[in-house]
Amino acid sequence: MDTCYVGIDLGGTNIKGGVVDPSGKVLCFESTATEAARGPAHVLDRIAALVATVRDAAGVEWDSIAAVGIGSPGPLNTRTGVIHDTPNLPGWVNLPLADEVSRRCGYPVVVENDANAAALAEAVVGAGKGLDCMLMLTLGTGIGGGIVIGGRVWHGADDHGGELGHISVCSDGARCNCGSIGCVEAYASATGVVRRTVEALAAGGKSYLKNAEKITAAKVFQAAAMGDELAGRIVADTIVCLATAMGSLINTFNPDMIVLFGGMTNAGEQLFGPLRAEVARRCFPIGARRCQIVRSQLGDHAGVIGAAIAARQRLEEAATA
Amino acid sequence: MDTCYVGIDLGGTNIKGGVVDPSGKVLCFESTATEAARGPAHVLDRIAALVATVRDAAGVEWDSIAAVGIGSPGPLNTRTGVIHDTPNLPGWVNLPLADEVSRRCGYPVVVENDANAAALAEAVVGAGKGLDCMLMLTLGTGIGGGIVIGGRVWHGADDHGGELGHISVCSDGARCNCGSIGCVEAYASATGVVRRTVEALAAGGKSYLKNAEKITAAKVFQAAAMGDELAGRIVADTIVCLATAMGSLINTFNPDMIVLFGGMTNAGEQLFGPLRAEVARRCFPIGARRCQIVRSQLGDHAGVIGAAIAARQRLEEAATA
Repeated sequence: MDTCYVGIDLGGTNIKGGVVDPSGKVLCFESTATEAARGPAHVLDRIAALVATVRDAAGVEWDSIAAVGIGSPGPLNTRTGVIHDTPNLPGWVNLPLADEVSRRCGYPVVVENDANAAALAEAVVGAGKGLDCMLMLTLGTGIGGGIVIGGRVWHGADDHGGELGHISVCSDGARCNCGSIGCVEAYASATGVVRRTVEALAAGGKSYLKNAEKITAAKVFQAAAMGDELAGRIVADTIVCLATAMGSLINTFNPDMIVLFGGMTNAGEQLFGPLRAEVARRCFPIGARRCQIVRSQLGDHAGVIGAAIAARQRLEEAATA
Repeated sequence: MDTCYVGIDLGGTNIKGGVVDPSGKVLCFESTATEAARGPAHVLDRIAALVATVRDAAGVEWDSIAAVGIGSPGPLNTRTGVIHDTPNLPGWVNLPLADEVSRRCGYPVVVENDANAAALAEAVVGAGKGLDCMLMLTLGTGIGGGIVIGGRVWHGADDHGGELGHISVCSDGARCNCGSIGCVEAYASATGVVRRTVEALAAGGKSYLKNAEKITAAKVFQAAAMGDELAGRIVADTIVCLATAMGSLINTFNPDMIVLFGGMTNAGEQLFGPLRAEVARRCFPIGARRCQIVRSQLGDHAGVIGAAIAARQRLEEAATA
């Protein structure tokens, strides 16, 4: 049996895990509740248990697993494997995630930022396979980002590169959760879409959404597709904000591809059609022609696959260093 | 004598040239008028003549020069050495600059984007020496940019990377010359500063500058330093626009340094002091702490040195390919 890696995708709600073979194929995939409220030690035990569960379910021997990769929310340090402080996991302050999980499961453990892991998976075995420069935006509660160049994640000096959700699209715009101003996350994340919709309704805007029990980004896109004017305006503004950030990224990197990831991409061509057109208005034509704008291919599995690839790359680097 | 390279910095007004030794030291530096109005063939002859002039003035043998590097305005193709079309050099459409100069001077010729060349020089032998990731913004008539990672220029798929002046800081802002909207160049270039000042004066703003014969960015900064309120507002807005783009770049790259280049940096701490403070408000604190924001060390010589380094790197790559 070829050497495999276990990839773990750690989120505030669920932990996903899988055994990933050398070609990037997921041999076994499981998801379990994080139970973050019970504290770090409990979550660490659950991660280690999930490693054993997926290994056994995949029918892989103990020593066919070379290492475990964990994609985790940041900020974190990929070299030390320490999670500095992450809002969705209460009590996780300067937690040595790699060491603690390694002690529990017996494998070397490597930590990667969750959005970077998803981007790495798409670049190596997904939508961006074979391309030199691929960027990813993960459109969720916030907006995450990842930069992959030559099959490697760009981390920057302190693992704070690739925070593409915090590109400002408006120098005197809305205050972002990060403390900065006008970040694309403040407008085009699911949270940003809901906030702007609620504000527009509160300002007296007419819309089917007035009767909705709970406004979600998905409902806003659905209402827009059904001709709701207020929702249509919100969606159009969302696309302008995303396209502004993406145009800046194209003028910066001249990349081969930008992959969009996350629930909002379920809107399909309702999002991608006008977005591609708007991006083309907001960067150099050569860059626009080059850059494919596509949806994630690996979806739910991207984080797990990318964490496994990160583990493999880090082990190979250590071996040749 | 160690192998040297000739660096040429081709501008719409002047051509600068120098012999650069292996350590990046300029042995001889000359500047001559471009005479662009007399057409491409005349300029090509002048470039070839300048190569010979600086070689002779430096007292270097013909065969001690390995190659010539030319930093040129773009868009251009670094692989073919063809200049596609550049506004400041009339008649330069799909001009094979590398081949034409090589034919005239007998040396291999390598072409690099002018802002990239300046950035490369700062990264290899200037302000960013020894750092892994350095970005540069050239604040002039327009705003150019360069990205240097591990001592190499990031070109992107079609040599359209590093166009950092065309990062948008305002999704519904001013139309830029490039066709996009809200580019930092439209606000914070010398042209942008003058345009906003003229607009503010035309709108009835009171200012010492009302009596100025011709408004320049330098005069606006001087007036601001002397307490002129309108000029102070223009400078403050310029700093906000620059800081917005630089904050986005820090969140994207987590770079070690951003170097500013060009006439506007003559304002010194009047620019850099408030700029550093504003950047820190517009990106993650770790990224802000990491990223030094400094003035170009090589100044006028950067383009020539960088063109020579680009030539050396390209020859070394060809030799190991």
